[in-house]
Amino acid sequence: MSDFDPRADLVIANQMADAARAAIKPYFRQSLTVENKLARGFDPVTVADRASETAMRAVLDALAPDDGILGEEFPERISKNGRQWVLDPIDGTRAFIAGLPSWTVLIALSHNGRPRLGLIDQPHIGERFTGWNDGASYRQGDQIQQLQTRKTVGLADAILATTDAFLFRNAERDAFDALRQAVRLCRYGYDGYAYAMLAQGGIDLVVESGLQPYDVQALMPIIRGAGGVITNWTGGDCSGGGQVIAAAHPDLHAEALGWLKAAAH
Amino acid sequence: MSDFDPRADLVIANQMADAARAAIKPYFRQSLTVENKLARGFDPVTVADRASETAMRAVLDALAPDDGILGEEFPERISKNGRQWVLDPIDGTRAFIAGLPSWTVLIALSHNGRPRLGLIDQPHIGERFTGWNDGASYRQGDQIQQLQTRKTVGLADAILATTDAFLFRNAERDAFDALRQAVRLCRYGYDGYAYAMLAQGGIDLVVESGLQPYDVQALMPIIRGAGGVITNWTGGDCSGGGQVIAAAHPDLHAEALGWLKAAAH
Repeated sequence: MSDFDPRADLVIANQMADAARAAIKPYFRQSLTVENKLARGFDPVTVADRASETAMRAVLDALAPDDGILGEEFPERISKNGRQWVLDPIDGTRAFIAGLPSWTVLIALSHNGRPRLGLIDQPHIGERFTGWNDGASYRQGDQIQQLQTRKTVGLADAILATTDAFLFRNAERDAFDALRQAVRLCRYGYDGYAYAMLAQGGIDLVVESGLQPYDVQALMPIIRGAGGVITNWTGGDCSGGGQVIAAAHPDLHAEALGWLKAAAH
Repeated sequence: MSDFDPRADLVIANQMADAARAAIKPYFRQSLTVENKLARGFDPVTVADRASETAMRAVLDALAPDDGILGEEFPERISKNGRQWVLDPIDGTRAFIAGLPSWTVLIALSHNGRPRLGLIDQPHIGERFTGWNDGASYRQGDQIQQLQTRKTVGLADAILATTDAFLFRNAERDAFDALRQAVRLCRYGYDGYAYAMLAQGGIDLVVESGLQPYDVQALMPIIRGAGGVITNWTGGDCSGGGQVIAAAHPDLHAEALGWLKAAAH
């Protein structure tokens, strides 16, 4: 148990997520201006992405002006007090532009670099997942429930998820392919939403690579608060992004790490 | 334009989908008894699957007792009048057991083997897509809108979807890999929901193999009603399942077929 009381910050995070929902929803499944952020590859940035981050920053300007902000779309605001909000205004922009309701808004609050509070919101479905390392909860409309990972599943019976199996290259791809064939089944295409389902008890393992800090920090207090484990592929801290593995319980995490360590860096 | 007036049958189909929703929802994201239908491979059948089909059959027993029923879970009921309802009580059972809200209920009505009416329902999100070859509509709560595919996209700008790229083998896999690299981006993991997004204008191409009649017949009147094209990989009728390609418009369909025909059978 930590000495962190999440209640005041949960109020702020929920207000940010409400503002992001309102900012994004007019653009979902509408014609979009999609730009290419990178000359090569594909990294869509939508008008909605910027509207979402702008709306969240406005809440922080009003309620927490001394806190730092690290967001995907706009320059960093340096923290004056060790607290930093880490924002992905739309995680899963590829799903977003395809009309698929698996994109999310990710909000993390870190203290001196350690994620203390996380929020995953899916505006179209109206689902919100929050966690604070010691606990995690789910809300859809009036329905509120505690989040708990599934504690009883071994590797052979596990459900694995990754966003895009074709993103892995070379040693990473070999390691992932071996893991994929060791589990019961694998699902694709859910970005941050897959971690929400791990916290909820449906998915047992999520394995990804190439993540950014704003892709992962919101997930950590939720996974941990629901009883799961989330690290990099060496078993260390993943708050900087990169190679990430989340598991429903410590034994499963250790078992899956065994398949990935040859490709860990 | 056909001479089929869908209104009376839409009332029946909507009543079936309402019954399926009520039957399934208590089981979603709950502990499930998952059986293995096949000794090899993985084909989960849940209690919810059977509850869904039972609920839909009860509606047909009351409202259309002479119509045939071809469902995934129970024996066929032979038609006395040339009309046949083709039911997939839960399409995307793998997503269902993982807690992912991309599974759907699929309902088709065929006349003498030709699909005339289709319905795709996602109970957790509360979304319903219906089509009758001449038109197609979307409903979520009080929001109702006409479905229209995106007519302006060429292959290089297209968004492609398939449920699981690892399901393809040999020549099919080579053809799919080539197509995947010719389009703008590819998404995975959505089963029948991907076809709903094609009708809605988010996705431009869906390519799959190994489908059953109850996987595909509900999709056909919706895709066509929204302005799209759906065939097998030779460009012929796909109501029997197998290799299926759906495209947002005829030119895109022809262009994509060019990549697949070497693997068509």
